[in-house]
Amino acid sequence: MSLADFGRLELELAEVEMPGLMSCRTEFGPSQPFKGARITGSLHMTIQTGVLIETLTALGAEVRWCSCNIFSTQDHAAAAIARDSAAVFAWKGETLQEYWWCTERALDWGPGGGPDLIVDDGGDATLLIHEGVKAEEEFAKTGKLPDPSSTDNAEFQIVLSIIKDGLQSDPKKYHRMKDRLVGVSEETTTGVKRLYQMQANGTLLFPAINVNDSVTKSKFDNLYGCRHSLPDGLMRATDVMIAGKVAVVCGYVTEIDPICALQALMEGLQVLTLEDVLSEADIFVTTTGNKDIIMVDHMKKMKNNAIVCNIGHFDNEIDMLGLETYPGVKRITIKPQTDRWVFPETNSGIIVLAEGRLMNLGCATGHPSFVMSCSFTNQVIAQLELWKEKSSGKYKKEVYVLPKHLDEKVAALHLGKLGAKLTKLTQDQADYISVPVEGPYKPAQYRY
Amino acid sequence: MSLADFGRLELELAEVEMPGLMSCRTEFGPSQPFKGARITGSLHMTIQTGVLIETLTALGAEVRWCSCNIFSTQDHAAAAIARDSAAVFAWKGETLQEYWWCTERALDWGPGGGPDLIVDDGGDATLLIHEGVKAEEEFAKTGKLPDPSSTDNAEFQIVLSIIKDGLQSDPKKYHRMKDRLVGVSEETTTGVKRLYQMQANGTLLFPAINVNDSVTKSKFDNLYGCRHSLPDGLMRATDVMIAGKVAVVCGYVTEIDPICALQALMEGLQVLTLEDVLSEADIFVTTTGNKDIIMVDHMKKMKNNAIVCNIGHFDNEIDMLGLETYPGVKRITIKPQTDRWVFPETNSGIIVLAEGRLMNLGCATGHPSFVMSCSFTNQVIAQLELWKEKSSGKYKKEVYVLPKHLDEKVAALHLGKLGAKLTKLTQDQADYISVPVEGPYKPAQYRY
Amino acid sequence: MSLADFGRLELELAEVEMPGLMSCRTEFGPSQPFKGARITGSLHMTIQTGVLIETLTALGAEVRWCSCNIFSTQDHAAAAIARDSAAVFAWKGETLQEYWWCTERALDWGPGGGPDLIVDDGGDATLLIHEGVKAEEEFAKTGKLPDPSSTDNAEFQIVLSIIKDGLQSDPKKYHRMKDRLVGVSEETTTGVKRLYQMQANGTLLFPAINVNDSVTKSKFDNLYGCRHSLPDGLMRATDVMIAGKVAVVCGYVTEIDPICALQALMEGLQVLTLEDVLSEADIFVTTTGNKDIIMVDHMKKMKNNAIVCNIGHFDNEIDMLGLETYPGVKRITIKPQTDRWVFPETNSGIIVLAEGRLMNLGCATGHPSFVMSCSFTNQVIAQLELWKEKSSGKYKKEVYVLPKHLDEKVAALHLGKLGAKLTKLTQDQADYISVPVEGPYKPAQYRY
Amino acid sequence: MSLADFGRLELELAEVEMPGLMSCRTEFGPSQPFKGARITGSLHMTIQTGVLIETLTALGAEVRWCSCNIFSTQDHAAAAIARDSAAVFAWKGETLQEYWWCTERALDWGPGGGPDLIVDDGGDATLLIHEGVKAEEEFAKTGKLPDPSSTDNAEFQIVLSIIKDGLQSDPKKYHRMKDRLVGVSEETTTGVKRLYQMQANGTLLFPAINVNDSVTKSKFDNLYGCRHSLPDGLMRATDVMIAGKVAVVCGYVTEIDPICALQALMEGLQVLTLEDVLSEADIFVTTTGNKDIIMVDHMKKMKNNAIVCNIGHFDNEIDMLGLETYPGVKRITIKPQTDRWVFPETNSGIIVLAEGRLMNLGCATGHPSFVMSCSFTNQVIAQLELWKEKSSGKYKKEVYVLPKHLDEKVAALHLGKLGAKLTKLTQDQADYISVPVEGPYKPAQYRY
Repeated sequence: MSLADFGRLELELAEVEMPGLMSCRTEFGPSQPFKGARITGSLHMTIQTGVLIETLTALGAEVRWCSCNIFSTQDHAAAAIARDSAAVFAWKGETLQEYWWCTERALDWGPGGGPDLIVDDGGDATLLIHEGVKAEEEFAKTGKLPDPSSTDNAEFQIVLSIIKDGLQSDPKKYHRMKDRLVGVSEETTTGVKRLYQMQANGTLLFPAINVNDSVTKSKFDNLYGCRHSLPDGLMRATDVMIAGKVAVVCGYVTEIDPICALQALMEGLQVLTLEDVLSEADIFVTTTGNKDIIMVDHMKKMKNNAIVCNIGHFDNEIDMLGLETYPGVKRITIKPQTDRWVFPETNSGIIVLAEGRLMNLGCATGHPSFVMSCSFTNQVIAQLELWKEKSSGKYKKEVYVLPKHLDEKVAALHLGKLGAKLTKLTQDQADYISVPVEGPYKPAQYRY
Repeated sequence: MSLADFGRLELELAEVEMPGLMSCRTEFGPSQPFKGARITGSLHMTIQTGVLIETLTALGAEVRWCSCNIFSTQDHAAAAIARDSAAVFAWKGETLQEYWWCTERALDWGPGGGPDLIVDDGGDATLLIHEGVKAEEEFAKTGKLPDPSSTDNAEFQIVLSIIKDGLQSDPKKYHRMKDRLVGVSEETTTGVKRLYQMQANGTLLFPAINVNDSVTKSKFDNLYGCRHSLPDGLMRATDVMIAGKVAVVCGYVTEIDPICALQALMEGLQVLTLEDVLSEADIFVTTTGNKDIIMVDHMKKMKNNAIVCNIGHFDNEIDMLGLETYPGVKRITIKPQTDRWVFPETNSGIIVLAEGRLMNLGCATGHPSFVMSCSFTNQVIAQLELWKEKSSGKYKKEVYVLPKHLDEKVAALHLGKLGAKLTKLTQDQADYISVPVEGPYKPAQYRY
Repeated sequence: MSLADFGRLELELAEVEMPGLMSCRTEFGPSQPFKGARITGSLHMTIQTGVLIETLTALGAEVRWCSCNIFSTQDHAAAAIARDSAAVFAWKGETLQEYWWCTERALDWGPGGGPDLIVDDGGDATLLIHEGVKAEEEFAKTGKLPDPSSTDNAEFQIVLSIIKDGLQSDPKKYHRMKDRLVGVSEETTTGVKRLYQMQANGTLLFPAINVNDSVTKSKFDNLYGCRHSLPDGLMRATDVMIAGKVAVVCGYVTEIDPICALQALMEGLQVLTLEDVLSEADIFVTTTGNKDIIMVDHMKKMKNNAIVCNIGHFDNEIDMLGLETYPGVKRITIKPQTDRWVFPETNSGIIVLAEGRLMNLGCATGHPSFVMSCSFTNQVIAQLELWKEKSSGKYKKEVYVLPKHLDEKVAALHLGKLGAKLTKLTQDQADYISVPVEGPYKPAQYRY
Repeated sequence: MSLADFGRLELELAEVEMPGLMSCRTEFGPSQPFKGARITGSLHMTIQTGVLIETLTALGAEVRWCSCNIFSTQDHAAAAIARDSAAVFAWKGETLQEYWWCTERALDWGPGGGPDLIVDDGGDATLLIHEGVKAEEEFAKTGKLPDPSSTDNAEFQIVLSIIKDGLQSDPKKYHRMKDRLVGVSEETTTGVKRLYQMQANGTLLFPAINVNDSVTKSKFDNLYGCRHSLPDGLMRATDVMIAGKVAVVCGYVTEIDPICALQALMEGLQVLTLEDVLSEADIFVTTTGNKDIIMVDHMKKMKNNAIVCNIGHFDNEIDMLGLETYPGVKRITIKPQTDRWVFPETNSGIIVLAEGRLMNLGCATGHPSFVMSCSFTNQVIAQLELWKEKSSGKYKKEVYVLPKHLDEKVAALHLGKLGAKLTKLTQDQADYISVPVEGPYKPAQYRY
């Protein structure tokens, strides 16, 4: 808790850079729309998330929180929030066992059941409830408890253990949760994919809003966030001069999709295969969302001290296993997250950042607050929408995208901070292009 | 016809810049897929369109063509095509009467009926058939001929006259056309809007493919095309130095849509209202697709010799009427399409390009061939698809978007010319991201 | 003279874009500093030069003008100036004979001798006087007339003939010119080179100011001027899409100077030899000031329809002779200044612009007015300086660079038009960095 | 010394990014040109300087080193160099007393006198010798010892004390140094200014080469170095999103020099006064080399959390004293080098980086190795030149700029690392532009 003061200072700095969240506080704070609402969040417990949490509480919610990744908690953020605003179950460097214990704690609001709303990132909170309900149904029908040994997946064994333990003392806990739950808002591709699968299977237990596919989430997080945090990570990790270097972005400069390739060309980039540029490039970045992009055989052919790094979600874009097990390879740790790997044949080496994991998080501090404000304002608005419509029947047990006018609202809340002023349609102009004066202004399929 | 040789030279130059169309000739030419097909086109009769027409004929089609705008025909292009490849009914500076006569001629393939396929731009060919069929039905039922005086719209009076004249000699002509027609492919927002309305009303008489919303049409035409042709037009019309000037793009720098505004900000532009910048800016460009953007009251407040121009589709973005009728205003024509308008109060003036019409066409030569190759390759592929499926029942009397794998194909056909090489997925990678090895690679709603 | 009205309109447009010249009119006009001064100019008789001439007359000068190039006169500019402001001896497409006749006419102010001041571009007016004086001296000493047949150089034969003709009727004409002359200001590298040679030989007959090496001349003309007029020329000549193309600038992307090469690299360009990129590039531009840069053997190896053009001063950067005499080569003129040359071996061709001459002048309209305003304001200020110091003995028969505070003044006069505001040093700050409050602000060798 | 291993790893990384220095090792190492030479350096003891030192030793020199700033030593660099290559007298956080003791130690090579050559940065080593010689002369003449109390300047008191102490035991030490010294090469504006003053006064005791004004030093260090290290420092210190923000560079966007202002405009920037933008800008950077640029009265009017920082050499560009003594101001240290200062009137604050000192060094790691390689290769080449000509009399007791062909050589040594290839002039071409085939290629006054 000694870090709480430092966390509070950084929270205050971040607030100024998160105008969407702060505008929500100004606009909705007085009417306390979340009064009576219990919100559980499962999302990286960082400074930016702290501003999200305190926005939810400022709007009247009670909040319990866990992280959605064992490494991503910023302890000073967790300390400040735990001291001042919400129950937090998260620290940097949890074990998987601890991780799922935290998730279960964040969902457990006591005898009255679980939360009213879930803010999810990756879908683990949602998963635990769905698995819990399934197990309780099986138990009610057959008396059988979940069997952790029934799966090879180490992490899923833990999930089943936790459910099993709870089931014996309270066989209706997850049912009570499900019954109480108004809905979930989810912000990642991975989590959204799981939700659509459950919808397709008919197993989704409550309404879900897909925040990931808001324009103000996907385009901003992906493009403007990375444009900032990638060079930031490169400079912090290596101090290498970027000017004059040849950089290869796997997933734009090497590309499988001809439309994206043509866009890259129109922006003045060359589009080639990785093999074409192995011996010429100085910096290689994977961004594909696919696997097996840069293999050890590629790395062997690179220039001495070529930099290899990844900003794709998972750590399987770079063949770290191939590198680690390469006969005679030598790993020289320059500093944490910056390793030089020397091949025995050439005695020349490459520099791998963040061990192939997200280098903008590992070597820098991830996306800046302003970008996260866009993403999180979508979350707040989705939560407000779910809560407002909790009794109207508007949302069924399906997955919804945030309507465009709310996407536009998120953008609008970020304009003032940057000194922008919008032009207002006249009624006559609005009629001419067949949109309402207040928006939304574009058809659903508009690509921006 | 004396211009035919010059037209042929420019056609040959354009071919090298239109790799998508030329690849179609290489790939499909040998099998003559359009053998037996009659294609009527209604689309600006320019050099680039000439390459399109000769691609259709190279694939086996018979072609008749008219322009879709009274001013846009390049006479040397028309001459070369008429001499070498197709029946052309188009010249620069048609009257409206002549324009519709040309359209009717292009649709009329003699006693056997009309075309098998239509390539449309704006939907006038499609409109004429629909109106013709409607009139014939009325006539069959009631014996009534269409009455041009029933409408105020001068242009529609001409349409009705033409149908009326034809009806008396051949009361089933448009029915025979409709019966023969396999479908239409349409490439503009305006034309597509009409098609969706007819679909909604249940009055669409044949299948239609919406080429406008292909990524390789909309994004490339709008963004990369304008990025080239706008400064081109500015320089040709005014020779003014662009460096150091303040330019305002109405429809990005002034913006009604908060999402687009936030994107503009992320790209380093300021977003303000037109009123905020009237007295500071040197160049004003309207690009909105809306009307009444720059009014005469705005123009009065601009700097001396501020440049005012438009690249939006219609000429109602700039208040030309207000300007022309402003008491005491003086128009000084520097050269064709470049006028200085002087206000009596200040004796200071503004420079209006192309009389408020599309300045990239009026003051320069429009989009470059490469961009048009993307658009037109979509047309060819849409036509091939319609013709291939003519008997399969795949396409009903509805509006279809080109499937993503064909959109990707269009892009792919343009990569080689720019020296690009695509990366190929392994089966394993394709499975991992759940796409076929051959594509399509993105979900339908992907925004690029 | 029918073009005079059109010329006047373009002069009025140009005035707004030439704030340096117009500021000179405002600042110096009232005091009529050139009252009593006769100025002869030998400089491309364009619209921009017209604004220069009328600035000189607005400051009280009498002016006679000729062009410094047989092709560069804009007839509408010449017509307007001749009608309204000065004696003009220039038209587009002079013969060499006519050219030198014009130069002699512009220098001849009647019995009282020649001009007080010369504005020179390339040094032909200065040359004629120097050769005239030399011939008169020889004639006075030996009675010998100049002998045109004594030289092979066709143009110099004409110079000698003109002097010879004059000498017989008036054997002291050039001496009277020399005696009256206060000085010359010269703006090209070529002319300046000649002046420094005469200074070195001790033959310079009057003071000269080298305007070429002002920062506001050399850096602006070379960099910002070309950055505008090169793409302008490319687009007007070929309409080719520039996005996605590979362009090679000979003289930056191919480079002999390692310092410039390293600067190019720092700006993100690759630096290679011409041979390395022959088969990959789409656009080749020579800018070196050297000769034999792109030879016919290079051109043979280029892509079909590669564009080859020059913006260096002379037309010997591209091997036009080698191309024209290549066995079996075929020249196809698409339009004036745009030729396709087809090689017999490959039946593939390249596109050469402006026959290898300055394509930004040949295919577009040269540098924009704003850039020329910087150059010409240097001329006006140099003329003012020479005239003001005509009796002070400050300037000897040597070549002078404009002092830095005048260079800074030229820049300052162009800031207001672009809405810029300068910061003012306090006396204390000025002392701290050891400069006067009013400037100049940088040491002589500062590189900007 | 425990840091020596880490230092060695970073030295090895830096070597790959310092091709100029490594090429010197390759080119000159075999001939050992510095054999017998003693070199003393007074220059920030960083990793990059380590590579410089080991280049000097690789060429045969013996080296002793001190830092030229009490804070700038990187201890891991000092440890590695001290262990492996040279005598090092430097650590991070010296007192001024310790600093001058280190300088004196680095100059003291024992009874045989001092170094043969000095590598200087700021001129402190040169100063100590000049002051020592002066004191010895006075002492020899009058028996008077230097009197530290004769000056108010605390640092100069220390200098006098050190000289005084040495004088008593060895009254000819600095004379022996001076007699032995072949020359100094100096790389900063400050040090160079001192040298020119001594030259003007006739007090310079040995030849000096001004490395600061090489193009490859001044242009690269100033422009390309700062372009990297400024945003790097901003991101490390604040994590703030730069996109969408308004940044003011005092010394370009606010500007006193009209020529620089016009260049800024040509690059698309606005030029205004600081007062004009106080309330709109988000980031303020001082880069002027002048003092009193951003005063506390400016800071009071800025937006909440506006960032204020400096990359000019001295820490007097930002009015830190005014800020610290502002009544009621509150300083909140977010983290080292990042402070929020809150004004009592508004309760709003600004963020000041690195306490107004060089933020690219304080918040990041300064210029990248590649840029320093350019600067330091100039040093090596200057040292080689001085040593080669030690007996030729070529260099007198004056200040010399490195000749252009050596400046070009420095650039050339950095091209290969970036994959560049130079074009070679033919003899004919070289003659045509009047330069040697091997260079130098530009006249002395060329501005690049």
